[in-house]
Amino acid sequence: MQLLLDQQGALYEQIARALKQAILDGRIVEGGRLPSTRTLARALQVSRKSIILAYELLCAEQLAVVRAGSGTRVGKLVAPPPIRRAPSIKKPTSGYTARMRNLPDFTLRGRAAHRYNLQCGEPLLNAKLFNAWRRKLSAAALRAGPKYPTAGGFMPLRVALADYLGRRRGVICDPADILIVGGTQQAVTLVARVLLDARAPVVIEDPHYQLAVHALKAHGARIVSVRTDADGMVVQALPKRPARLAYLTPAHQFPSGATMSLPRKMELLRWAKTNDCWIFEDDYDAGFQADSRPLPTLHSLDVGNRVIYAGSFSKTLFPSLRLGYIVCPQALRRDLFTAKLLNDLGSAAIEQAALATYIQSRQYEKHLREARREVLIRRRVVVDALRRSLGARIEIGPHDGGMHFVIWLNKIGFDELPTVLVKAANSGLGLYPVHPYYRVKPSRPGLLIGYAGLSAAQLKRAVELLTECLRRA
Amino acid sequence: MQLLLDQQGALYEQIARALKQAILDGRIVEGGRLPSTRTLARALQVSRKSIILAYELLCAEQLAVVRAGSGTRVGKLVAPPPIRRAPSIKKPTSGYTARMRNLPDFTLRGRAAHRYNLQCGEPLLNAKLFNAWRRKLSAAALRAGPKYPTAGGFMPLRVALADYLGRRRGVICDPADILIVGGTQQAVTLVARVLLDARAPVVIEDPHYQLAVHALKAHGARIVSVRTDADGMVVQALPKRPARLAYLTPAHQFPSGATMSLPRKMELLRWAKTNDCWIFEDDYDAGFQADSRPLPTLHSLDVGNRVIYAGSFSKTLFPSLRLGYIVCPQALRRDLFTAKLLNDLGSAAIEQAALATYIQSRQYEKHLREARREVLIRRRVVVDALRRSLGARIEIGPHDGGMHFVIWLNKIGFDELPTVLVKAANSGLGLYPVHPYYRVKPSRPGLLIGYAGLSAAQLKRAVELLTECLRRA
Repeated sequence: MQLLLDQQGALYEQIARALKQAILDGRIVEGGRLPSTRTLARALQVSRKSIILAYELLCAEQLAVVRAGSGTRVGKLVAPPPIRRAPSIKKPTSGYTARMRNLPDFTLRGRAAHRYNLQCGEPLLNAKLFNAWRRKLSAAALRAGPKYPTAGGFMPLRVALADYLGRRRGVICDPADILIVGGTQQAVTLVARVLLDARAPVVIEDPHYQLAVHALKAHGARIVSVRTDADGMVVQALPKRPARLAYLTPAHQFPSGATMSLPRKMELLRWAKTNDCWIFEDDYDAGFQADSRPLPTLHSLDVGNRVIYAGSFSKTLFPSLRLGYIVCPQALRRDLFTAKLLNDLGSAAIEQAALATYIQSRQYEKHLREARREVLIRRRVVVDALRRSLGARIEIGPHDGGMHFVIWLNKIGFDELPTVLVKAANSGLGLYPVHPYYRVKPSRPGLLIGYAGLSAAQLKRAVELLTECLRRA
Repeated sequence: MQLLLDQQGALYEQIARALKQAILDGRIVEGGRLPSTRTLARALQVSRKSIILAYELLCAEQLAVVRAGSGTRVGKLVAPPPIRRAPSIKKPTSGYTARMRNLPDFTLRGRAAHRYNLQCGEPLLNAKLFNAWRRKLSAAALRAGPKYPTAGGFMPLRVALADYLGRRRGVICDPADILIVGGTQQAVTLVARVLLDARAPVVIEDPHYQLAVHALKAHGARIVSVRTDADGMVVQALPKRPARLAYLTPAHQFPSGATMSLPRKMELLRWAKTNDCWIFEDDYDAGFQADSRPLPTLHSLDVGNRVIYAGSFSKTLFPSLRLGYIVCPQALRRDLFTAKLLNDLGSAAIEQAALATYIQSRQYEKHLREARREVLIRRRVVVDALRRSLGARIEIGPHDGGMHFVIWLNKIGFDELPTVLVKAANSGLGLYPVHPYYRVKPSRPGLLIGYAGLSAAQLKRAVELLTECLRRA
């Protein structure tokens, strides 16, 4: 009998585990006698005490029994065990799994350790915010209560949000319509479950935010991609055949940075009405608009109650918070709430309670004002530096809002791009091309410029490095 | 022109919103002139200043334009708006929705305000725990980092859990196999997506935990219910036709309280192997077992790598935390991790970091020891009081582990039960019958006795009240 000890925990536990494995593997036959404690102690070169303890453990677990006069035996009750064979799942285990495996390789974000990382989605780091958040969390721990939260969300948070959204985004809604979710990604998956059967057509923008579309594809949706320009989605290019859902980022098209124009918005709403289509408005970085009075949201223009408005705190606070919300159209409210309940019984209560007072006390808006001011400074710094250093070599895309924009490279071909990226990486500059976000490849290469996570000085240095890389190419 | 002000926010905003609504409703035709500020101010009996501000707001939103000499007009750009008609969704919007609506009415938990509530699932309230948790959260806020968390979970938490599970539950696993999820409910939905196509057969216990089974049904699974007795699921009653998944609560069958015997466990594993079936082991209240050495988990007996072991902190810490874990079989690991990523990009980071140090510093085990001691005291108090007061009127079900058990009523018929429940409620006692958890109605009525949330004195009083109700019936 071979015993392999796993070196975890006390010695007698290791021995008991190894014996158990031998029993389960069928290497000690049912009813078979275990070696005497003395014999095994000698074989393993351990104390007899350890063997005795191990046997006691096996007896406590009913895997062995002590018989007077015949030592310790494997328990009679154990059915002959199945043969060890780990299932290897080459074949997908479900349609969902098959679709997941068909997605292009993706990870949440590349965790590149570039000194100057121009990745978009990097939060504005802010020690003050974190300190305020700590205090809110600490206070909330006393207030939230230990019991199961309401699956729809902590009511004071929904009240605070309804007030905020009405005042700041023109989204007039009842707190009862607001469903608290674990971020926009979860909002997309819940809406998919409630609205989409297999192969249901869903309209998305080209380019688009990949993880949301991955979730829709894994769910089984048929994706219909519609091109965008400087005015957002080109509504004239919408398909003639009705779609079930249109997923858009109208305030700040991701990743192109375009803002959807008012006429386009009105036309989209009309198209949705004609085609009996729902609209998912992903207002992912609302709060970082340049104007104090941004263009109206689709939700506020919609008189047909077809807009599902979703927001998140990943951009305005920090991504590791994992909280967001859906403003549910009345007709979908009950089903969306039930879907959330069945998905996870509701989001964590303490963080919801902390967020409620953070918004309700207007600290959130104060933070947004300050963050927006800082974002505007950084944006100006990087845009000015790019214009000065690169001039006609680049074209700067829309950059009125949000925390990133796109620059298009006039003098670089797609074939030269990989060399530029490697050179940049070697000099400590993280560059991210934009064409992977497009279904129809753009005519020239473009780069995402995520500037919010870098200071003004870092941004200037980043632009210097970029200029060097592009000049040398 | 009728303008209805909604009384929310500043007056000029209300007026702007009402005008916007009128424009969107088509009550002011495209290109049409808005009333002069003077006229409208008089009509609404407000200051002209408010009207001017409202018109400015409409212009900022591009819904109106000012023309020299012709006052303010509705913007030319606005497409004739769709007619208002809120969609009423009588017909379910998807197969998922249809199945959700088919579920029996349920809420998360009845939030009855009984003075003595014998509902199961009530946590052991503990001020010390909450204070410790506050400190951990506060410290974790500095450590967790603001960026997107790893979708699989915070690695130090997974390391701490692997260590804990190995020592305390005999679940030997690699931290890389552990997926952090938002509680057992989410574990069930993720496993369903990865393993179950529409109409896939899933074996469950009769009786069973309803919300998990609701989620499986909504997902589209075909439920095959197998009866249980004092030794857990009756393995002989398992269906001849292969199932895809078996969902069980072996350590403490919910809600009957039975512990699955070792021979049954071995037989189940053999059946699963023969039928190529996966097993979901819901170890929902592990940590409240009476013995320090509980029977081995299915996971620890499984040499076929078919057991998906899931646990949660809802019972051992508090339900509003919304954190749990899946120990993934290797073959499913990648797919389960991707499904979690697509579902919500991962769970909140700060609470994961707090939990990591709470477990790693062994405070969790200290808390469990103390809580277990208290639970044992309360259990003994309520069992003794029941025996003394009700004797042969009741039969007490298995009560070796967990935080609740079942009593069967020998002298009460199902027809008398509603009267007993009403009487109890009127005297401040919350009683919960067990038969709704059964598919095959038991021969006599039973009551759930959730005792963990009540003090010894409260429990004694609760038993007195119960005795009175049952005697009078």
